[in-house]
Amino acid sequence: MPKISNRAAEMPASPVRKLVPYALQAKQKGVKVYHLNIGQPDIDTPKSAIDALKNIDLKVLEYALSEGNLEYRTALRDYYHSLGFTDLTTENFIVTNGGSEALNFALSTLCDDGDEVIIPEPYYANYNGFTSTFNIKVVAIPSTIDTGFALPVIEEFEKKITSKTRAIIICNPGNPTGYLYTREELQQLANIALKHDIVIISDEVYREYVYDGKQQISMFDFPELAENCIIIDSESKRYSMCGARIGCMITRSKTIHDAAMLFAQARLSPVLLGQIAATAAHKDDAAYILQVRNEYTHRRNVLVDLLNGIPGVICPKPKGAFYCVAELPVDDSEKFAQWLLEHYSNNNETVMVAPAGGFYSDPELGKKQVRIAYVLKEEDLRRSVELLNDALQKYREEFSL
Amino acid sequence: MPKISNRAAEMPASPVRKLVPYALQAKQKGVKVYHLNIGQPDIDTPKSAIDALKNIDLKVLEYALSEGNLEYRTALRDYYHSLGFTDLTTENFIVTNGGSEALNFALSTLCDDGDEVIIPEPYYANYNGFTSTFNIKVVAIPSTIDTGFALPVIEEFEKKITSKTRAIIICNPGNPTGYLYTREELQQLANIALKHDIVIISDEVYREYVYDGKQQISMFDFPELAENCIIIDSESKRYSMCGARIGCMITRSKTIHDAAMLFAQARLSPVLLGQIAATAAHKDDAAYILQVRNEYTHRRNVLVDLLNGIPGVICPKPKGAFYCVAELPVDDSEKFAQWLLEHYSNNNETVMVAPAGGFYSDPELGKKQVRIAYVLKEEDLRRSVELLNDALQKYREEFSL
Ligand SMILES: Cc1ncc(COP(=O)(O)O)c(C=O)c1O
Ligand SMILES: Cc1ncc(COP(=O)(O)O)c(C=O)c1O
Repeated sequence: MPKISNRAAEMPASPVRKLVPYALQAKQKGVKVYHLNIGQPDIDTPKSAIDALKNIDLKVLEYALSEGNLEYRTALRDYYHSLGFTDLTTENFIVTNGGSEALNFALSTLCDDGDEVIIPEPYYANYNGFTSTFNIKVVAIPSTIDTGFALPVIEEFEKKITSKTRAIIICNPGNPTGYLYTREELQQLANIALKHDIVIISDEVYREYVYDGKQQISMFDFPELAENCIIIDSESKRYSMCGARIGCMITRSKTIHDAAMLFAQARLSPVLLGQIAATAAHKDDAAYILQVRNEYTHRRNVLVDLLNGIPGVICPKPKGAFYCVAELPVDDSEKFAQWLLEHYSNNNETVMVAPAGGFYSDPELGKKQVRIAYVLKEEDLRRSVELLNDALQKYREEFSL
Repeated sequence: MPKISNRAAEMPASPVRKLVPYALQAKQKGVKVYHLNIGQPDIDTPKSAIDALKNIDLKVLEYALSEGNLEYRTALRDYYHSLGFTDLTTENFIVTNGGSEALNFALSTLCDDGDEVIIPEPYYANYNGFTSTFNIKVVAIPSTIDTGFALPVIEEFEKKITSKTRAIIICNPGNPTGYLYTREELQQLANIALKHDIVIISDEVYREYVYDGKQQISMFDFPELAENCIIIDSESKRYSMCGARIGCMITRSKTIHDAAMLFAQARLSPVLLGQIAATAAHKDDAAYILQVRNEYTHRRNVLVDLLNGIPGVICPKPKGAFYCVAELPVDDSEKFAQWLLEHYSNNNETVMVAPAGGFYSDPELGKKQVRIAYVLKEEDLRRSVELLNDALQKYREEFSL
């Protein structure tokens, strides 16, 4: 049997994916599973996007330009101008098959085998997938639940920089913690990136969803980083159109842009249809974004209050995105998550949560934590927390915790 | 300025892409450019596919399953059953963002840095892009125009196999040559793959377009290769829907499938909309395929006859796909292709061709050759060859060839 590559063999297993067969089994037994484990909102995609597809007037679904079609890049440019980054032109954007492909391009453009990227943890689990693909080493900087996942002091970052460090990846606002970076923190990161001439890859796919009247500060707000910054963006979460697979990689650096274009050209073209849908969505989207932001704010408030009301549960209030990380009074959140699907049900219902081990470089650090997404409507969130509360009692009894 | 990765810095430059600015300039001067250089047919996408998009009844464009949605994988399975591969189930397929992503998955699943893949040349230029991405070394086996690009004797392949060889990539029918493999050739390749326990990656994205009553033989026709074969497929060319970005990677090997799924999961999801369009296209497509095949047959006959009628031009008749490689009476096909765009026009028209250097590991081997795609309608092809004939005379005069 032929050998599988090390990049595949050594890819960290995702604790959520290990649960998928148990979720399937539960469903086959007729148990309804509330999915608190996913990043797929139940929010409607803007009608303008769906209508644009319904009204397509094309005879041939042709390849788009490798960098994305001009019409869509113009829509993106205008959106970034509206954020205040009026120096950007359509030439700064590379349209990608989701933020996922943008991350792939950023990493392959900057890193060779054995190079290092620094990432504050807990972090988006698929960063592991992309770094493993290119044999890049993740150097994690821990943040902890008791400080609400505040960024570690900047000295921690500097201590970890070696001659192999190529980039720092931040996610702002953050998946899984909902953490929102302050201007001071970003300024400090900018300073060390410049000092050591490394790149900040700033994953801002949740930019729109920041609460309590706060606003996300983009890494593009630091013009001194022109040569040292890549933004990862995506329409997946902004417009609840994850299946359209449209994102982009943006940089002011012509060197980085041109190098990334080589990868974009090799795969020929990003999706055409998603560009059509997203171009339509970008027109006149203020009411949509506001309404969705209000909905998430409300869901977050409901969810986090209810969670903190369960004895033994700690859950810092996220400031953005649509996830929170909660510490549970359990021995092992992976075991608990599996037990929820395998052995628990109440009135034929149960919940699926994401064990937080997958969001840490050392899964032990997340052993008592889970990530909960507030992608379900209020009523379902309320019922889910009710189930979680009940299940925790039963679980603690069963295992005498 | 931060360092660009070696994988980017060392990516071979594409001679066609170097021409793009010249094509743009020509257009800005008001010159019409006939694009014989591209793989984007002018053939209509099936109406059923476009209609499926027009009739979408979705409120949320959700992520598809990482392996592709069941409905589309069922359509793919049924199509493969119709080809005679009735052992395949929906579990053998991983739906990808074009055949391009399938190639990426195949290579990253099998190869680490410094590993080798053997490819008969001339070969699809983007194989270089994908192999460079993963620092895989391409070991080329030359085929030549005077034998109609016949496969080299199988001993040539065996000579090149080392302990680092992980796969042989073939493209059948081939881009750029239109070469169609015989059963004997495929059997010999199967034998050496088994003997050395390496994988055949068989790129069959042009399978439908084979002419003169011949039929493509798939690598799946060799059941002994169950653990040693990956098929790359795509809807791009089959249904002239390149912009939908839908392809797949298929293998009977559970080991390879499961490893490739890790990369599929990291990028979350293939495009949803393309799956909807392609599912519709697969229903009842016999008349469409037949009509398109007839159209390409006709175009090929017209094009190749006209080309061979130009003094000094040699062009073997391709048996499949929609490209041919022609040798021209020029000193350097890159220089000639640029001259066509920069200095030539007749009645305000010119042609763009793909210098064949990009299809060889050593560009010198393709120095007098170009690839011409018959993706334009007859009338345009006729005019293009007229222009080429006229241009060749002028070029040879100008440079005293
Ligand atoms: C932090 C973060 N970045 C990137 C992505 C990639 O999303 P997509 O590829 O759908 O744009 C996700 C998706 O969940 C995410 O959470
Ligand atoms: C031989 C070959 N393989 C794969 C592809 C990839 O096409 P796509 O990604 O559109 O499926 C192409 C496109 O031209 C090709 O010619």
